[in-house]
Amino acid sequence: MKIGYADVDLEREKRTGVPEVIYGEGKTVPEIEGIIKVLLDAGQSPIMVTRLSEEKAEKLSKSFTDELKYYPEAGIAVLGAMREPDGDGTILVLTGGTSDIPVAEEAALTAEILGNRVKRVYDVGVAGIHRLLKHQADIDEARVIIAVAGMEGALASVVAGLSKAPVIAVPTSVGYGASFHGLSALLSMLNSCASGVSVVNIDNGFGAGFQASLINHHPYKEGQ
Amino acid sequence: MKIGYADVDLEREKRTGVPEVIYGEGKTVPEIEGIIKVLLDAGQSPIMVTRLSEEKAEKLSKSFTDELKYYPEAGIAVLGAMREPDGDGTILVLTGGTSDIPVAEEAALTAEILGNRVKRVYDVGVAGIHRLLKHQADIDEARVIIAVAGMEGALASVVAGLSKAPVIAVPTSVGYGASFHGLSALLSMLNSCASGVSVVNIDNGFGAGFQASLINHHPYKEGQ
Amino acid sequence: MKIGYADVDLEREKRTGVPEVIYGEGKTVPEIEGIIKVLLDAGQSPIMVTRLSEEKAEKLSKSFTDELKYYPEAGIAVLGAMREPDGDGTILVLTGGTSDIPVAEEAALTAEILGNRVKRVYDVGVAGIHRLLKHQADIDEARVIIAVAGMEGALASVVAGLSKAPVIAVPTSVGYGASFHGLSALLSMLNSCASGVSVVNIDNGFGAGFQASLINHHPYKEGQ
Amino acid sequence: MKIGYADVDLEREKRTGVPEVIYGEGKTVPEIEGIIKVLLDAGQSPIMVTRLSEEKAEKLSKSFTDELKYYPEAGIAVLGAMREPDGDGTILVLTGGTSDIPVAEEAALTAEILGNRVKRVYDVGVAGIHRLLKHQADIDEARVIIAVAGMEGALASVVAGLSKAPVIAVPTSVGYGASFHGLSALLSMLNSCASGVSVVNIDNGFGAGFQASLINHHPYKEGQ
Amino acid sequence: MKIGYADVDLEREKRTGVPEVIYGEGKTVPEIEGIIKVLLDAGQSPIMVTRLSEEKAEKLSKSFTDELKYYPEAGIAVLGAMREPDGDGTILVLTGGTSDIPVAEEAALTAEILGNRVKRVYDVGVAGIHRLLKHQADIDEARVIIAVAGMEGALASVVAGLSKAPVIAVPTSVGYGASFHGLSALLSMLNSCASGVSVVNIDNGFGAGFQASLINHHPYKEGQ
Amino acid sequence: MKIGYADVDLEREKRTGVPEVIYGEGKTVPEIEGIIKVLLDAGQSPIMVTRLSEEKAEKLSKSFTDELKYYPEAGIAVLGAMREPDGDGTILVLTGGTSDIPVAEEAALTAEILGNRVKRVYDVGVAGIHRLLKHQADIDEARVIIAVAGMEGALASVVAGLSKAPVIAVPTSVGYGASFHGLSALLSMLNSCASGVSVVNIDNGFGAGFQASLINHHPYKEGQ
Amino acid sequence: MKIGYADVDLEREKRTGVPEVIYGEGKTVPEIEGIIKVLLDAGQSPIMVTRLSEEKAEKLSKSFTDELKYYPEAGIAVLGAMREPDGDGTILVLTGGTSDIPVAEEAALTAEILGNRVKRVYDVGVAGIHRLLKHQADIDEARVIIAVAGMEGALASVVAGLSKAPVIAVPTSVGYGASFHGLSALLSMLNSCASGVSVVNIDNGFGAGFQASLINHHPYKEGQ
Amino acid sequence: MKIGYADVDLEREKRTGVPEVIYGEGKTVPEIEGIIKVLLDAGQSPIMVTRLSEEKAEKLSKSFTDELKYYPEAGIAVLGAMREPDGDGTILVLTGGTSDIPVAEEAALTAEILGNRVKRVYDVGVAGIHRLLKHQADIDEARVIIAVAGMEGALASVVAGLSKAPVIAVPTSVGYGASFHGLSALLSMLNSCASGVSVVNIDNGFGAGFQASLINHHPYKEGQ
Repeated sequence: MKIGYADVDLEREKRTGVPEVIYGEGKTVPEIEGIIKVLLDAGQSPIMVTRLSEEKAEKLSKSFTDELKYYPEAGIAVLGAMREPDGDGTILVLTGGTSDIPVAEEAALTAEILGNRVKRVYDVGVAGIHRLLKHQADIDEARVIIAVAGMEGALASVVAGLSKAPVIAVPTSVGYGASFHGLSALLSMLNSCASGVSVVNIDNGFGAGFQASLINHHPYKEGQ
Repeated sequence: MKIGYADVDLEREKRTGVPEVIYGEGKTVPEIEGIIKVLLDAGQSPIMVTRLSEEKAEKLSKSFTDELKYYPEAGIAVLGAMREPDGDGTILVLTGGTSDIPVAEEAALTAEILGNRVKRVYDVGVAGIHRLLKHQADIDEARVIIAVAGMEGALASVVAGLSKAPVIAVPTSVGYGASFHGLSALLSMLNSCASGVSVVNIDNGFGAGFQASLINHHPYKEGQ
Repeated sequence: MKIGYADVDLEREKRTGVPEVIYGEGKTVPEIEGIIKVLLDAGQSPIMVTRLSEEKAEKLSKSFTDELKYYPEAGIAVLGAMREPDGDGTILVLTGGTSDIPVAEEAALTAEILGNRVKRVYDVGVAGIHRLLKHQADIDEARVIIAVAGMEGALASVVAGLSKAPVIAVPTSVGYGASFHGLSALLSMLNSCASGVSVVNIDNGFGAGFQASLINHHPYKEGQ
Repeated sequence: MKIGYADVDLEREKRTGVPEVIYGEGKTVPEIEGIIKVLLDAGQSPIMVTRLSEEKAEKLSKSFTDELKYYPEAGIAVLGAMREPDGDGTILVLTGGTSDIPVAEEAALTAEILGNRVKRVYDVGVAGIHRLLKHQADIDEARVIIAVAGMEGALASVVAGLSKAPVIAVPTSVGYGASFHGLSALLSMLNSCASGVSVVNIDNGFGAGFQASLINHHPYKEGQ
Repeated sequence: MKIGYADVDLEREKRTGVPEVIYGEGKTVPEIEGIIKVLLDAGQSPIMVTRLSEEKAEKLSKSFTDELKYYPEAGIAVLGAMREPDGDGTILVLTGGTSDIPVAEEAALTAEILGNRVKRVYDVGVAGIHRLLKHQADIDEARVIIAVAGMEGALASVVAGLSKAPVIAVPTSVGYGASFHGLSALLSMLNSCASGVSVVNIDNGFGAGFQASLINHHPYKEGQ
Repeated sequence: MKIGYADVDLEREKRTGVPEVIYGEGKTVPEIEGIIKVLLDAGQSPIMVTRLSEEKAEKLSKSFTDELKYYPEAGIAVLGAMREPDGDGTILVLTGGTSDIPVAEEAALTAEILGNRVKRVYDVGVAGIHRLLKHQADIDEARVIIAVAGMEGALASVVAGLSKAPVIAVPTSVGYGASFHGLSALLSMLNSCASGVSVVNIDNGFGAGFQASLINHHPYKEGQ
Repeated sequence: MKIGYADVDLEREKRTGVPEVIYGEGKTVPEIEGIIKVLLDAGQSPIMVTRLSEEKAEKLSKSFTDELKYYPEAGIAVLGAMREPDGDGTILVLTGGTSDIPVAEEAALTAEILGNRVKRVYDVGVAGIHRLLKHQADIDEARVIIAVAGMEGALASVVAGLSKAPVIAVPTSVGYGASFHGLSALLSMLNSCASGVSVVNIDNGFGAGFQASLINHHPYKEGQ
Repeated sequence: MKIGYADVDLEREKRTGVPEVIYGEGKTVPEIEGIIKVLLDAGQSPIMVTRLSEEKAEKLSKSFTDELKYYPEAGIAVLGAMREPDGDGTILVLTGGTSDIPVAEEAALTAEILGNRVKRVYDVGVAGIHRLLKHQADIDEARVIIAVAGMEGALASVVAGLSKAPVIAVPTSVGYGASFHGLSALLSMLNSCASGVSVVNIDNGFGAGFQASLINHHPYKEGQ
C-alpha cells in the first residue's frame, strides 16, 4: 500500500511467511507511525520495529501507549502480543564477548517474536575455549545456532565443529585497527574451515534471527 | 587418526552428524588414497572427495575400480553407495547463468550424497525475471533454496522475496573487471534487502550443499 | 570569469549545452552568493545550487528574497523560473527503498530544472518484485530510467531486463556493515547481468539527472 | 527456451528492444552452437557472439560457413546481415591510447550491429590534449560519445567538458602497478568533475556500445 | 635535543638543508610552545608550524606577540621574517577546483617560507579545459608545477602534457562516494599517462611545497 | 662485501646474532652461487638458502657436492653442519591443515638450523578442536609456539588461550574466494581475542622460525 | 564466573600465566566495577583496566578510593601493588614520533604491571636516523624491543637490523590520507626486510607489552 | 601523425622538452616498427623503446641493424646516439635489494638517455643501515636521488632524512603475501615521515628517470 514515502508490502506474509518488519534507522518517528498504522489497519500482529533508538522509542510510545514494548539492548520495539514458540526446536545464541551482546539480543529477540524458543549463552569466546566446551549440552540440543563474534570471529568455526546444527554466523564491528569495522570477522566466518556455517551482514542480528526462524519452521506445514 | 601428513578426524560424524569429507585441491593422489584407506578401514560410507580434477580422478580410479564414481561437472568423486533421501523436503538449486553451473552442481551433488532430494533450475538470472517467476511452484515447495550467482548476485535477494524457505546464497567468481573475482556478488548477497538470506564463501558449492542438508535434517532426530 | 576564489565558467552552456551549476558543499554562503551574482550578471537563468543544507539555504534566501526556491529533500535551491519540459519523453525515477528518496529527489529535480518531464515511483525494491512489476506501463513509456538503490543495488539489473530505455544507475550509501558506504551497490550496478545500465558515483543524484537530461534531448537540435 | 544447460531468453527483444546476445567466454563451442541454433530457429537475425577467441571462432565457422563473420580485434562474431543505421545520429568512439583499441572495437562493432553510425577516433589521450582538441567537430556532431581509457582514465572528464552529448565511459585494464587492473580508471570516471558521464564495467566495450545504441534510438518509436 | 616528549632534531638543517618544521596536529599548545622555544634558543629562523587550527593559533599568539603570523587558509603559523626568494625560478601552484584551495595554500605558503617565488592559478580543472589552456604562459615559465586536485585528479596528467617542468601532484580528499577520501585522485595521479609527474600523500600540501622547493634550489650551491 | 649485483652483509651476525641468509626467489643459480662463495670465504657456517625450487637446488648441488643438503618440503638448502640446539626450550610448530605444512616446514627447519629443538604437530585445526586439546602437554612444555593456518586462521587465538608461551602466528595463502590469498587469516591473527599473539607476513615460515629462535635464545648471553 | 553480562575467566592465570585483564572500551562503569569485584573476591592482584577514558576512571575511582591508580597517557588503571620486575632482562620501547607515545605508554605500562623492567626511548623515527643510532647501547642491552610507529612504520625494520633481540612492532593510526588509519604502517611492518619482527594490531600497545612480557619470562620456570 | 592504430605525438618535444617515447608492452613488433619509422622520418634521435622483451628486441634488431642497442636488464632499446650529460648534477639511483635492480636500471638508463650523469648504488636496504650510511658522500653530491625499493619501502624515508636533494621514490612489486604486489611499498613511500619524497607508480623506473631528468635540467634555459 502506498503512503507517500513508502510502498508498504502487505502481501509479504503471504509470499514469505513473515509479515513486514519496519527498519527504524533513517526513518523519522512520524514516518514509522504512519507505517505502523497501515499495518495495524491491515490487521498485522505483532508489529516489529528494529534499529530503534531510545529517543525515538520514547516518542513513539506516546502514540501507542500500553501496546508498545521496547527492548533497549536489542533496539527493538514490538506492538502486540508475542507469538508462541511453535518451531521444531531451540535456537542457541552465542557470543564471543560482552560487547557482542547488543547484536545477539537483536537476533534473539527477533527469533522470539517470530515464534521460537531461544537459549542465550554469552561471552564464550575462543580465547577461553573451556567456557564454550562446558556448554556442549546446549550445543547438542540446538536446532539452529547463531554465533555472534567480532575481532577474529573464530567462534563460528569452533562451534560448527562441535555441532550437528546449522550455524548462522554474525560478524560484529567489535574491535579496532585491523578489524576494519567487522571485515576481519566477516572474512573469517566466510572462510570457516568447519562446514555448516553461513554468514549474514556485519552486525545484522535481525537477519540472523530471521534466518534461524525460517530454518526452525517448516515453510509449507500448517501453522508454520 | 594420524597418518604422517594428516590427522584424520574419525569422530567428526559422531560430533557433527556428517562424516569426514576429503578436500582434493592441493593434495596429491597418493595423499588422497591414504586418507581414503583410513576412512575405509574405519567403515565410513560413502566417502566423498571434492575439488578433484579429471586427471587426479582418473589416477585415483585405478586404485578403487568399480567403486569410485566421478562427476566431472561438480568435480566430486564418491566411493560407496549414495545415501537415500531422508530429509524434510526438497532442496532447490538455482543459478543466475550457465557459467554458474559447476558451482551449483557441487552444491547439488553434495546435498544428494548427504541424503537430500534436489531439484535443479538453472539459468534464471534477474536480467529476465520472468524466467524465474515461472518457477514459483518450485520455490513454494522447497524446504531450502540454494541461489548460485556471479556478477551482481541479485538472484538471492529476488528469490528470498518470493519464498518462505531459507536461502543459502553462493557468490561465484563468474564475471570480470569490477566483479573482482566474486567480491561484487559476495557483497550483494551479504547486503540483501530481503530477509532470509545467508551466505557462504565465493564458489563454495560444497558448503552450501552441506548447510542446506543440515537445515533439511533434524539434528537430534533418529535416522537424521 | 575570475572572482578571487573561483574561475566561473561562463561559456559552459555554449560548450556543453547546460549552464554552470553551483556545488554547494564546502562553499560558504558568501562564496555561493558571489558566484550567483556573477551568473546573474551574465544573464543565466535558472541558477541551480546543489548539496545545500537548510541552514545555508535560509541565509542565502535573505539575499535573494522571492526569487530563491529551496527543495529540502533534494537539497537544491533554484533562482529563476524553471525551464519548460522540452525533451523527447519522460524520465522515470525509481528507488529501491524509502531511504534512497533524497538521492532520487536530487536526480528528479535536476532533470526537471533542465527541462524534462519526470515520473517518480519510489520504494519498489527487489525484495518485493511485484511492487516493481505492476509499474511495467511506466517502464514502457520512459525515454530514460534512473534507478536509485543502496544495499545490494539489484534494482538496476532487474529494471534493465524489463525495459527498452537506457538505465542510469545511482548506487546510494544506504546500508551498513558490508555495504561499505555504497561500495556494494556500486559494484552490483557495474556488474549488471542485464545490458543497458551505466553508473554514476555513489549518491550522485545530480549526475544521474543531468545525464538523463542529455539523453532526453538532442544535443544538436534547435531549442535543445 | 530450455536446452539443457541454458534457458534461452527468446522474449528479450520484445521486452528490451534488443535480441539475445551470446557471451562467448566460458562457453564451449558446442554450447555456443546449440544456442545459435535455438536463436536461428526462432528467426533472430543478426545473431551476435561476444568475447569469442580466434580458436573458437575458427571452429564455429565450420558449422556456419559463409554466414559467420568474425572480427578478431573486437572478438565478436556475427551471423546474418548487419542492421542498417537507423538511430538519431552518430556515436563517437574515442580511446586514450592504442592499447585501449580492442575494447573500443568491441563497443564500436556492437553499436554498428545494433543499427548505429559509428565514428572512431583513437589514441587521443590527455597527455597530448591538442590531439583531442582538433577533433572538436566530431565531438560537436556526436549524439553519444564512448570514451575508452585505462591508466588514469582522464579522457572521460575532459571530453564531457567539451561536449553536449552524454558520455559513456569505459575504464580499461590497461596499465600496471597502482592501476590495479582498471580500478584507477574506474574510480576516475566515477568521480568525473564534468557532468554528463556514466560508467560501465572495466573492459566492457559491449555494454558501452549497447547503452549508446539505446540512447541513440527512441525506445517507443516505430522501427526503433 | 630532548625535551621530555620530543627529541628535537637540531641538525636537520645541516643534513637536509631545511630546518625542523613543527607538525601541529595532535600536539597541544604547550607542547608546540616548548618545541618553538628549543628552536628559538638554537637560533632557527623562521620557525614554521603546520596543520595549526585557528583556536590553537590564537592561544599560541599570546606567547609570541608580534612575532607570530598566522595564515588561516593554509593553517600555517610563522615566527620570524620570511626568507627572500632565492630559487632558480617560479613555482606554479594549480588547483582543479575551489575546494582544493586550502591544500594549495599550504603548498604555496610552505614554498614561500622556504625561499621561493610562487604563482597561484586556482580553479582550472579539466571539466573546462580552456580555463587551463589560457594559462600556457604561466606553465611555460614555471621551474616546478604543483597540481592540486581531488575527485578524478586529471589535472596532473593534462598539465604534465603541456609543460617542460616537473609536476608534483597532490591528490586531495575533495569529493564523495567513490572518491574514497582521495584514493581516486591518488590512483589517477600515480597512473598518469603523461610523464613528469610524481605524487605526494593525499592533502599533503606541505610535502609538495617542500619538494618543489628542493627542486627549485641547487642543494650543493652556496646560499641554497 | 660488494659483488656486482649484491652488497653482502658480512657483519649481520655481529649486529643481529644471526648470519646472512640467502633468499632464493628471484635470484639466478649463478647469483646464488656467487653469494655462497663470498659467505664461504668469510667463514660462515652453516649457510642457508630459502625459497629454493627443486630445479635450482639440483643445479646448485652440482657446484657444492656432498656439502649441500636440500629439504624439498621446506624449499630450503643448507651448506655445512647444523648448529646444535642451544636455546632455552622447545619450539612447537602447529598447523591448521595439511596444506599449511610447507610453510610450517620452512619455519621448523629454519628454527632447527638456528639451533633450536623443534616439535611438529600438524593438522590440528579448530574444526576438530579435540585434536588440538589432546596436545595440551606439548603446549605446556613449549617455550615458543608457531601457529600456521590459512582460511580463517583461528588456530592462533585458540592456542594462545591455552598457553603460557608467546605465539608467533603465520597466516598462509591456503584457501580460495574470500580468503583473498591469505588476507582473511592475516586479519584474524592480528585481531586475536587472546593475548600473546604476534604475526608475520603471509606464508613467511622463515620469519616465524627466525623470530621464535630469537625468543628462545638470550641475545646477550654467552654462546647464544 | 558468570555475572549476568560476563563470563569472567578466573582460570586464565592458571592456563596462560597471566590473570584476566579488563578491556574498558565499550563497557559501562558499573559493568567494569562488577568485574573488578569478582576478580577481587577471587583474590587477583593487581587488577588492570585498559582503554579507560579519564571520565570513566574518575567515576571508577570513587568506588575504589586509595587503591586505584590511573595513568592518563596510557589509558590504564591499576588496582593493587605492581609486581616486581622478575623477567630475564629489559624491554626497550621505541617510538617514531611524539604522536605515537600514548600507544607506547600502553605497551610500557602493561609490561611493567606484568613484572618487567622497561626502558623508554621516544621520538627516534627514521627521518633522523642518527637519533636512533645514538641509542645503540640500549638496543644491545634489550631482551625484547617494542617498536611503535605510524605513517610509513619503517622504525621496525631499521631497529631489527641493528639488534639481536626480537622486535614486536606496533603500527599506529598516526598519519592521514594514504596512511589509511594505520594500514600503511601495518603493511610495512609485516613486510619488513629485516628478520626478527612480528606484528600486533594497529594501536595495540597492550598486546605488544603482553607479548614482550611472555618473551621476557620463562613460561615453565618457577616464579615466572 | 596518424598511422592507423596510433596518433604519434610529434610535437611532444616542443611542448614538454622530451621527445615521444615508445611504450613497448602490449604492442606488436610491426606496430613498434611503424612508430619508429614515423619518428625517424620526423628526425627524432635518439628513439627509445621501454618495456621491451628480449624476444621482441631480437626481432626488432633485424629491421634496424647496427643502430639499435638493447639493454636487457632495463628492458630498453635505443636507436641513435645517446645524448651527452648536460644536466645540473648527478642523479643517484639506490635500491633496497638485488631484486629491485631491473626497475632501477630502467630508471638509470632512462636518465642517461635523456642526458644525465647517473651514479648507481644497489642493495643498500635499511635492514643493514650501515651499508647505506657509508655512501653519505654520494648522497651529499646528488642533485636528485631515485630510491627504488619493494617490501616495506623504508629506503625512501631514511635517505630523504640524510639528503638535501629531492627523492623520487619508486615502489617495486618485489615481495609476497601482504606486500600486495607493491602496495605496501607504495603506501610507505607516500607516508614518508621525512619531507622531500615524491612517488611514482609501482615498478615505474622510466617515470622516475624521466622526472629526475626534468629536475636536473632547467626547463627554460638554452640547451636544456
